[in-house]
Amino acid sequence: MKELLKDIYAVLEDVESYLHACSIISFDQQTVCPPDGMEQQGEVQAFLENKAFCLLKEEEFTRNTEKLYAGLDDLDNAYDRSLALMLHRTYLKKKNITPEMDKEFSLIINKAFVKWLEAKEKADFSIFEPSLSAIREMSVKETALREESLPLAYDNLLYDYEYGLGTKELDACFSICRERLVPLLQKIQNSPKKIRTDFLTRPVTDEQQKEMARYLLDVIGFDFRRGTFSTSEHPFTDGLGENDVRVTTNYDPNLFCSSIFSIVHEGGHALFELLQPKENFAHHISTRKTMGMHESVSRFYENRIGRSRAFIHLIFGKAKEIFADVLSDVTENEFYEAVNVVAPSLIRTDADEFTYIFHIMIRYELEKMILSGEAPIHDLPSLWNDKYEEYLGIRPSNDREGVLQDVHWTSGFGYFPSYAIGNMYNAMYFNRMQEDLDVDQKVASGDFASINAWMAEHVFKKADLLDPAEWIQDITGRSLTPDDFLDYLEKKYSEIYEL
Amino acid sequence: MKELLKDIYAVLEDVESYLHACSIISFDQQTVCPPDGMEQQGEVQAFLENKAFCLLKEEEFTRNTEKLYAGLDDLDNAYDRSLALMLHRTYLKKKNITPEMDKEFSLIINKAFVKWLEAKEKADFSIFEPSLSAIREMSVKETALREESLPLAYDNLLYDYEYGLGTKELDACFSICRERLVPLLQKIQNSPKKIRTDFLTRPVTDEQQKEMARYLLDVIGFDFRRGTFSTSEHPFTDGLGENDVRVTTNYDPNLFCSSIFSIVHEGGHALFELLQPKENFAHHISTRKTMGMHESVSRFYENRIGRSRAFIHLIFGKAKEIFADVLSDVTENEFYEAVNVVAPSLIRTDADEFTYIFHIMIRYELEKMILSGEAPIHDLPSLWNDKYEEYLGIRPSNDREGVLQDVHWTSGFGYFPSYAIGNMYNAMYFNRMQEDLDVDQKVASGDFASINAWMAEHVFKKADLLDPAEWIQDITGRSLTPDDFLDYLEKKYSEIYEL
Repeated sequence: MKELLKDIYAVLEDVESYLHACSIISFDQQTVCPPDGMEQQGEVQAFLENKAFCLLKEEEFTRNTEKLYAGLDDLDNAYDRSLALMLHRTYLKKKNITPEMDKEFSLIINKAFVKWLEAKEKADFSIFEPSLSAIREMSVKETALREESLPLAYDNLLYDYEYGLGTKELDACFSICRERLVPLLQKIQNSPKKIRTDFLTRPVTDEQQKEMARYLLDVIGFDFRRGTFSTSEHPFTDGLGENDVRVTTNYDPNLFCSSIFSIVHEGGHALFELLQPKENFAHHISTRKTMGMHESVSRFYENRIGRSRAFIHLIFGKAKEIFADVLSDVTENEFYEAVNVVAPSLIRTDADEFTYIFHIMIRYELEKMILSGEAPIHDLPSLWNDKYEEYLGIRPSNDREGVLQDVHWTSGFGYFPSYAIGNMYNAMYFNRMQEDLDVDQKVASGDFASINAWMAEHVFKKADLLDPAEWIQDITGRSLTPDDFLDYLEKKYSEIYEL
Repeated sequence: MKELLKDIYAVLEDVESYLHACSIISFDQQTVCPPDGMEQQGEVQAFLENKAFCLLKEEEFTRNTEKLYAGLDDLDNAYDRSLALMLHRTYLKKKNITPEMDKEFSLIINKAFVKWLEAKEKADFSIFEPSLSAIREMSVKETALREESLPLAYDNLLYDYEYGLGTKELDACFSICRERLVPLLQKIQNSPKKIRTDFLTRPVTDEQQKEMARYLLDVIGFDFRRGTFSTSEHPFTDGLGENDVRVTTNYDPNLFCSSIFSIVHEGGHALFELLQPKENFAHHISTRKTMGMHESVSRFYENRIGRSRAFIHLIFGKAKEIFADVLSDVTENEFYEAVNVVAPSLIRTDADEFTYIFHIMIRYELEKMILSGEAPIHDLPSLWNDKYEEYLGIRPSNDREGVLQDVHWTSGFGYFPSYAIGNMYNAMYFNRMQEDLDVDQKVASGDFASINAWMAEHVFKKADLLDPAEWIQDITGRSLTPDDFLDYLEKKYSEIYEL
């Protein structure tokens, strides 16, 4: 077994080198690459991804990984067991995909990103439409080719992001959410409580926002020797390596709170990467943590921490210093209420914590229909707009603020539910954390060392060793439920809106 | 021959993909990578470089390229002939280098860059010393292994940057420069002319400098769809591809003219890349243009154009607008004289146009001694300081402003003379251009389309088809001489200093 592992690691090391280069290129495309340079970058990236793909498809390697999987029970290291399992799952997924197909998929995805950028800039879905159709075709084709494919194409994609959670489970979760949140939203909208928001759109400079972002990353414990932050069209985090974790944000001159919460969100992703066990890197299996787990952490920092009274208390002084003109006539309580105002809006990433889940439900329903064929790609802009009207009572006036707003579909479908599941996870482990720590007190005093240490021990440590269902059970002793999240929303917003 | 070329191109395409990825990583390291992430990046880069190296070393490929070279006279396309010649030269250089050695060299270079960054930050040469020793050893070893190696190690390295120009030719050039410039510097220093420079060190913000940099790039005709500009420790230009040319600069809050001229310098490099024939990319031979040619262009834009009365006239209004506080009490003539003041200084990149060549002569003499063994690496800081005292009458107070100031030695020796040769080239072709265009009039009116078109036709077009001696002959009808450059300096500075 030891020899076998050694051979496998040798191949994986080369694979990692190729994929590391691809990640850098992708980061470069999203932050600095000039528009006309994108295409060549995409070709180079597809070339390197294909090299990695071919290594993983080599007969000797797949024979070795299947041998490893067969002897899984004899492995005494948990990381090695996890590696064996994940390699087996990858093997099943990729078994029937030829290198030519893989390269074709990469090219489709790379091109889609370029087209999406252009389409979004021009608010014209028709520019992106052919790429999105190609991505849909590719998704259907690719999932059907999987060994042990699930019957529904969409379930396969959902499993890629959150293993074990398909449409059946999500339908159940979201229907409870709908039942409890739709009437609550009505109550909130009918509440006579007036929340002051006039100052939220006062103009600020990029420099001010950048200073605030740096301060916030510092507060929550981001490590600037092992990480960096940049600007990009769509904020993201890239865990490039053990000592290289990058967050990005963007700056809206008329919406200074947008970058505040996006940087805390991305900072949460980054802490997950920075504070995980070193073995995750040494064992090349850092991919086992799911997007739902990752989003649970980012949204934990963004919302449970970031939008709490305690956190606002902690940062308000600095915010007043940096955004002096904007906040001169604003009290701490007004600021707290303003960043928690419930106001149906068009852009997901700017949504308030309460209505956010509606944005996800809309995308989930559309993705289900796209994959089943019920929703023709061509009709997506109007279907999208109809859903916004149905759930949130508002309608986008163009594609940029409608169907083109998210980058996610440039690489495929199935990601969005992770955001909602993340909220449910973190509500569960927040309640567990509360048993060990006085969270508000720690946050208000800026003691992120304690918070982060608890997260590292309970949430991060086994994320690469367990499937999501095992992981949330391990942290909380319970199975996934939306109840904790819904209880939290009810309590918080009833208080704010004096219901 | 057609089949042969096809096979060769197929390999070169893969090589280019690997090298493109390496360039992105290198760009990333110099602009955004967090300090602790550098090492892993270096390893990935070395891995990819080695892949490219191995492809170029494959028996079938080298057999093909030698076959192509043997039939060079039968090729009817000038680009193909040039390709055949360059592949042959590369073959001779690399023939005896094993992939293991190549990988070792890459690792040495990657590590050296990281160590240099740290050493410079701490102003401590001892941190960089072992790496620099390793680079010297590597250079000696590698040049000795070349098929058809020149007797002096240093000559081989000089030929890498400026084919055909070795120590014999450079000694001759520099001795004429010394003869004419040393007495001229004395006259200037004894001149009673007082040039006002107080405003040059007035504080400015990064944002102001960035705005000015963007304006200047726009003025000289930089294409923002095919290029971008960023910040880095040491300004550089990266011609990543046909549609992706990047310039960087850095911002000293107390020396606003530094970024002004560095961006025009890098902008010049970028124009060379952006305005060269498309065939250079299609034929994978964009490396034939030498560093001396490239520096001639960058320094043409920086000095011949950038520090001329005409250019200062063109940009002064905008400069006054952006740096309003700094320039409120400054006249256009004062600004012109200030950016042309002759003042021996420690930092090469901040040197004035006149004393710049002394910085190069110092490095040239030291490199000669390093390679011959006359100068032990350990003694470099003091040898460096002694030379500065000898030539410029000033002495660095620490290694950061002394021996550690330049990034170049992190990748080897032999580059610096290109800067001086570049000045000589551009003085020669400036005089030729003057026969066709009223340069001052074009510059003063902002008509860079005419200037750039002339450059594209006469200077850029054949840069990848000719050796340097042929190239300057083609442009000017004459062989390399320092005379035009020295005449220009004498005339310009005699006027400014009223000699």
